[in-house]
Amino acid sequence: MSHLEIERHAEVVTLALRRGKVNAIDEELIRELRAALDELVVDRQARALILTGRGPFFSFGLDVPAIYALPEEACSRFLADFTALYTRLYTYPKPIIAAVNGHAAGGGCMLALAGDRRIMAAGRARIGLNEIAFGASVFAGSVEMLAACVGQRRAETLLMSGALHDAAAALDAGLVDRLVEPEALPEACLEEARGLAARQPNAYAGLKRLLRGPVAERMRRREEDSIRDFVQIWYSAETREALREIEIRD
Amino acid sequence: MSHLEIERHAEVVTLALRRGKVNAIDEELIRELRAALDELVVDRQARALILTGRGPFFSFGLDVPAIYALPEEACSRFLADFTALYTRLYTYPKPIIAAVNGHAAGGGCMLALAGDRRIMAAGRARIGLNEIAFGASVFAGSVEMLAACVGQRRAETLLMSGALHDAAAALDAGLVDRLVEPEALPEACLEEARGLAARQPNAYAGLKRLLRGPVAERMRRREEDSIRDFVQIWYSAETREALREIEIRD
Amino acid sequence: MSHLEIERHAEVVTLALRRGKVNAIDEELIRELRAALDELVVDRQARALILTGRGPFFSFGLDVPAIYALPEEACSRFLADFTALYTRLYTYPKPIIAAVNGHAAGGGCMLALAGDRRIMAAGRARIGLNEIAFGASVFAGSVEMLAACVGQRRAETLLMSGALHDAAAALDAGLVDRLVEPEALPEACLEEARGLAARQPNAYAGLKRLLRGPVAERMRRREEDSIRDFVQIWYSAETREALREIEIRD
Repeated sequence: MSHLEIERHAEVVTLALRRGKVNAIDEELIRELRAALDELVVDRQARALILTGRGPFFSFGLDVPAIYALPEEACSRFLADFTALYTRLYTYPKPIIAAVNGHAAGGGCMLALAGDRRIMAAGRARIGLNEIAFGASVFAGSVEMLAACVGQRRAETLLMSGALHDAAAALDAGLVDRLVEPEALPEACLEEARGLAARQPNAYAGLKRLLRGPVAERMRRREEDSIRDFVQIWYSAETREALREIEIRD
Repeated sequence: MSHLEIERHAEVVTLALRRGKVNAIDEELIRELRAALDELVVDRQARALILTGRGPFFSFGLDVPAIYALPEEACSRFLADFTALYTRLYTYPKPIIAAVNGHAAGGGCMLALAGDRRIMAAGRARIGLNEIAFGASVFAGSVEMLAACVGQRRAETLLMSGALHDAAAALDAGLVDRLVEPEALPEACLEEARGLAARQPNAYAGLKRLLRGPVAERMRRREEDSIRDFVQIWYSAETREALREIEIRD
Repeated sequence: MSHLEIERHAEVVTLALRRGKVNAIDEELIRELRAALDELVVDRQARALILTGRGPFFSFGLDVPAIYALPEEACSRFLADFTALYTRLYTYPKPIIAAVNGHAAGGGCMLALAGDRRIMAAGRARIGLNEIAFGASVFAGSVEMLAACVGQRRAETLLMSGALHDAAAALDAGLVDRLVEPEALPEACLEEARGLAARQPNAYAGLKRLLRGPVAERMRRREEDSIRDFVQIWYSAETREALREIEIRD
């Protein structure tokens, strides 16, 4: 595996995105994450996961230049794979801590939202669903996760502003659960993961299913339509132009 | 048009209720609002709307004396029109700022809740769904909008108290998003509207549909039954008596 | 009736649990509560209810030793009865104040959540859904009530922690609406109940149905599956062991 670093600390497994400068999400990264989740779900030694990024980014989101170049149908397929990935993380039977080590924008923020809990490095890192800033919409499942996390009204404000928020604002909005100093992040996440790993696994999975099952059902039911709408906006002349102006040097 | 003042500031269109002293909502006002929305939805120059009231009221709600005099069937029809109006505002593809310039009670508060954002004049104005205070219930859609806005538990407290809240309490409860001095309200709303007008229109409409589509679906599904229940309570002897005691001088 | 004390103060009826030291909920207590609700729903003199406990506990939850001894089928039946009871309280047409006089854990917390409002005695009492602490899950309806009360994200944190919260933390989390000194609790609840009793009964019941009907619909739809899952975990070797370690001296 080249884009995903997997590290074990006893019963806690860390999955660290490591792809280019901004950990941009492409088809290969999705495949590797999926494979890791497949393995870990049946691995009884693995009791809790940490999802994080290497370098100064958690993930700056989907690999826009790569997707920009795709024909429409391939783009739809990629988005179906990506949304299926975050839905799987959201309903994964084992606890997942998102360790937001650095910027988490767009699709990166969506992956963080899919965790059971989000711990963010205080400091320069920013987080948000900033799609509207470059004329794109998002996907139904990410809206459901956001609204479940921060409530409907705040979800509206956050999505319509398209802003990226610093750690203090993210904590205040409920986008993340806790802030720690950057150097203390790995240990804080390990400790949190160990706490959740100590729960009786079936009871934990049962509670998570009760809590997130109905949200996930809505995510799945609405996702396909939302991808179609997203792609329609994404390939519109106006958004194409806005996208061309973004400089993502990766 | 006689009850609705329409003003344009470049890409922002202000719709101001102007009917009697309290901007009470009757069938004619609903028709004029509907006609304006029909026109503006296809008007590419109009990129954002402001909904406000003239005089010291935003709107004190439905025109109770007029409705009180209606036979049951006509009352049901009026309420179907009114609830369809707020559902349309709630899902309107363009941004709508509710500029709460003065008291917004009952149906007036419902129109404000249908906006994308609520900015309220600090000072004497009050806002709330006060139906229970005179023995009436409300409609399913208004409950959905309220719960989406302030959360389920606060919606319960607000509706069961039947109180009208001053601006500070309304902000604290999340009923409104922001307070400004009364004289600064028009400019503050214009500025906010311009900000949202600058978004790529399809992306904005797409996000709003993702966010509010499921809420609106529940609003529509439950509205008819709720109007039937409302009318049944409304025409009960107990509520008739409570209504006779209300003095609305308009 | 032996486990339920019923007291009338004019239009307000207090139902006080009184069973052993911790007011543990068994089949008989459920039957008595159900019978009282049947009577009071048609009693026009009874305009509001208070649900509380005698002694230092509100209720420490289901009678675990009794349920532990039940064969699986009887356990499922008991849980169906219990969840039907809290759903009935949650949708009861008359106002119900939960007077949280002492510890309210597990099933006790669920009964409190079913009230229209929760007033808690400041001091030593603790409240929470602590099932995960002994390896059990909960029921779908209790998750729905909790999420409606405190929002989805907080519901996740509270359930996954399995902690019991003191009064200040419970107020902060939104688990209860108000704290009063223990000796002032009965009078404060009476006053609150009288306030809600003064509402026009049909309008109050109509609002409550609008607010809680959709939540209750989800509760009912998901409850049966969740009881099956709960029982499966409950009878697993791991949880049996955890339960054996709990000392409930009643």
